[in-house]
Amino acid sequence: MRTVRGATNLVTKVFQRCISFKPAPPLHAKDLNQSTLEAKYAVRGKIPIRADELRSKLEQDPQSFTFDRIISANIGNPQQLDQKPLTWYRQVLSILQYPKLLEVDNFFPADVVERAKSILNSVGSVGAYSHSQGDPHIRESVAEFISKRDGFKSNPDNIFLTAGASAAVSYLLDILSTSEKSGFLIPIPQYPLYTATIALNNAVPVGYFLNEDQNWATDPAQIRDLIQQNKEKGIHIKALVVINPGNPTGAILSKEDISELINIAAEHGIVLIADEVYQNNVFEREFISVRKVLYEMRQSNPELYENVQVASLHSTSKGVSGECGQRGGYMELVGFTKEVKDVVFKLASINLCSVVSGQALVELMVNPPKKGDPSYELYHKETSGIHNDLRERSQKLHAAFNNMEDITCNKPMGAMYLFPKLNFSQEKYEKLFQKAHEMELTVDELYCTALLEKTGICCIPGNGFGQVQGTYHLRTTFLAPGNDWIENWSKFHKEFVKTYSQ
Amino acid sequence: MRTVRGATNLVTKVFQRCISFKPAPPLHAKDLNQSTLEAKYAVRGKIPIRADELRSKLEQDPQSFTFDRIISANIGNPQQLDQKPLTWYRQVLSILQYPKLLEVDNFFPADVVERAKSILNSVGSVGAYSHSQGDPHIRESVAEFISKRDGFKSNPDNIFLTAGASAAVSYLLDILSTSEKSGFLIPIPQYPLYTATIALNNAVPVGYFLNEDQNWATDPAQIRDLIQQNKEKGIHIKALVVINPGNPTGAILSKEDISELINIAAEHGIVLIADEVYQNNVFEREFISVRKVLYEMRQSNPELYENVQVASLHSTSKGVSGECGQRGGYMELVGFTKEVKDVVFKLASINLCSVVSGQALVELMVNPPKKGDPSYELYHKETSGIHNDLRERSQKLHAAFNNMEDITCNKPMGAMYLFPKLNFSQEKYEKLFQKAHEMELTVDELYCTALLEKTGICCIPGNGFGQVQGTYHLRTTFLAPGNDWIENWSKFHKEFVKTYSQ
Repeated sequence: MRTVRGATNLVTKVFQRCISFKPAPPLHAKDLNQSTLEAKYAVRGKIPIRADELRSKLEQDPQSFTFDRIISANIGNPQQLDQKPLTWYRQVLSILQYPKLLEVDNFFPADVVERAKSILNSVGSVGAYSHSQGDPHIRESVAEFISKRDGFKSNPDNIFLTAGASAAVSYLLDILSTSEKSGFLIPIPQYPLYTATIALNNAVPVGYFLNEDQNWATDPAQIRDLIQQNKEKGIHIKALVVINPGNPTGAILSKEDISELINIAAEHGIVLIADEVYQNNVFEREFISVRKVLYEMRQSNPELYENVQVASLHSTSKGVSGECGQRGGYMELVGFTKEVKDVVFKLASINLCSVVSGQALVELMVNPPKKGDPSYELYHKETSGIHNDLRERSQKLHAAFNNMEDITCNKPMGAMYLFPKLNFSQEKYEKLFQKAHEMELTVDELYCTALLEKTGICCIPGNGFGQVQGTYHLRTTFLAPGNDWIENWSKFHKEFVKTYSQ
Repeated sequence: MRTVRGATNLVTKVFQRCISFKPAPPLHAKDLNQSTLEAKYAVRGKIPIRADELRSKLEQDPQSFTFDRIISANIGNPQQLDQKPLTWYRQVLSILQYPKLLEVDNFFPADVVERAKSILNSVGSVGAYSHSQGDPHIRESVAEFISKRDGFKSNPDNIFLTAGASAAVSYLLDILSTSEKSGFLIPIPQYPLYTATIALNNAVPVGYFLNEDQNWATDPAQIRDLIQQNKEKGIHIKALVVINPGNPTGAILSKEDISELINIAAEHGIVLIADEVYQNNVFEREFISVRKVLYEMRQSNPELYENVQVASLHSTSKGVSGECGQRGGYMELVGFTKEVKDVVFKLASINLCSVVSGQALVELMVNPPKKGDPSYELYHKETSGIHNDLRERSQKLHAAFNNMEDITCNKPMGAMYLFPKLNFSQEKYEKLFQKAHEMELTVDELYCTALLEKTGICCIPGNGFGQVQGTYHLRTTFLAPGNDWIENWSKFHKEFVKTYSQ
């Protein structure tokens, strides 16, 4: 007979086997946490799921459709397309996985061997859990990188190594969502990770509109108005998200606008979440980190700005690394109190640690070969090749859109995306609006669905990112190689306009 | 002048620069989400943080203490200690990182080369995001492994590749927590990931006590009582967590008890979360998966059991892999409706994908070299070496505890931990209770703190896992090599008893 000790309210008894019960039904969506149902993530939503189905069909029968492959323009995933990983990264990572490779004479350049040894010396094995905040020596490298980039010293204690930038966003929104009246200012259009994570936290997304006519510029005055208006409604803004360079817009914030955002944060005690994962994907205008502007402002007026809290995020998934699947990233917390950082640390420790090979990749990204190092030339050749390639692809696609009837598209300054506008008016495109109504789709959903079904090109309707009511956009990466898919898109568009306009 | 389009309630105006505001204070812990404050994770809590401080001091001055190193017995992290990674895993992973290694003649065994090619063929590059649910071919391998293990077919569509098992726990608790009246049955003692994740979801942990006198057996009758009692309090039990083999207890569930738990799940529509990450760490009694017992019960009575929902978790972090830092794992969802699986998929897609090298590691774990394959002999030698080593270490530590005055310890059947009981009675140890009271510590906290400060051995007080009120335990791994730390512990204990008993 079993006894339950210390639970005195439980009657000790022998369990009688009983199979005469009525089985309970399984769970349905309605039985689940409402906020998990409400969260939406368009980048991997309905249209990409349909693209997967088409891809399977093509694998089984390459003659299924008039196109021979799916062009995955829905997600910034360079190595899924034709971008090659950097040799420097992968040589070091291969040694970390199998240190016996160090015994092969003269196979790897000396700096690769040296770096692999120094990382192994710090992490021990990539198969061991690291410190939950990330390996201390890698955090030192990150702090050095930031110090050099901005000209203001960074502290390794403020660095958290994370699985891409997504994990960092999740920690921040988790700690800042105190009730269903917690608001988060996000740009519209935005990267839907933000709305999804806000929904999971049962908090309120407060969108500020980027100005399409001014190349998607940010408007600090509008943000001040929104803070005030929401306060009146009882919604307390906890953080202001900036994505710089912008996803999906490709815009880069001006220094002046950044300093206005910092003033807002200083006055209202709002955390600035600076999503700077595209900081290395820049074609025009210089990238300046929010952190750098803050330190400059602190220099001239320490008292006013010492309390400003900036969380800046970076990742190995974008830039010229494109190592999305390796899940490397970091977050720096500037201006946060120790007790708040301790809570973030606790959340990180519940997840044990971010993948250690991804942490090593962060080290390789922030501390690349220098001029004169054996790996430098190849590294330089590969990285500038990718930079040039991305710039060219962006220009080519941008030009193609502006040649399409009733499409306009801002020239991207950075990132990996274009967010063209479908100028389909009710008058000219009555048939389109009617068809969309019948199909229970929005106009941009209908366009993207038709594009996928006719050409195999998978991109995402603007409504997945947010857009001014009554306007229609789509987001596409410009990563896919070649011209044929762009030509197919142009042909499709011509046909689409012909079918639906009058 | 900037205009805000589509936001007609915003007055268009020129923003006036203004630096005359009063700066807001920074956030403190009290300003944060209460549930993130309440979540506790002892495995990386106060004592391990203190151990990190001591480790730093030792690095600076090896003479700081009477001990020369920290023994990290707080966490199952084999490769942090002396366990070597399996050659088979690491050879394949090195090629995945740097496929040019395939060009080195005769360096790798043929089956390593072949497997690396087949994984690359499926994932493309480990630097590309995979399908959010995990690479389809690796999921097929997992399904085959499960089918073979249990004798009942598994479907790759039900498999989710996850970052260790922790990510899977997080998805499940996220979707099942519908309100603050959602209850989760967890064993006491438990692995504190569960209480932490329940706290983050603002749900209710409902502990069922494992019976220490019966080698930590599970008592289904007690679980039925708890369901009823909680129902009366308005708390609706959503899931029943079983950890098998047990963490921290090392117990293995009997087939009879598993079938009773399935009956409970069938009758009450409660999800069974089967944390089976230690399924390969078994010394005594056979491991039988919850899934296997369910399929057997379904065979004899399909109607009664077809709706039972089991989520079973596995990981590359434990077993003989010990690849904690690589963050590989999987979850199989049996009996769940498609709409529920779709919500889990959406959560996985918000995280984009689990690290792809970790997914590859899952493939290597579930589909190892077979007899006759070139890598088989070494693989077999390494894995049995680790198995034997772990068994011996567990026996040695177990024997040491049972030789210590006023400590008793069940013999572990599996997993990586011992959970000895400190039989310190108020009468005999009055001084100890008084000291603990002065220090505002519990007796087990005081013991573990003293152990760390005197010997450098870091283990966790039982209250981090839960224990019957008035009893005291600690959890330690038995992974650390050598005898000297065990001898030091025994000496420390003798001294401790002498100091505090009368």
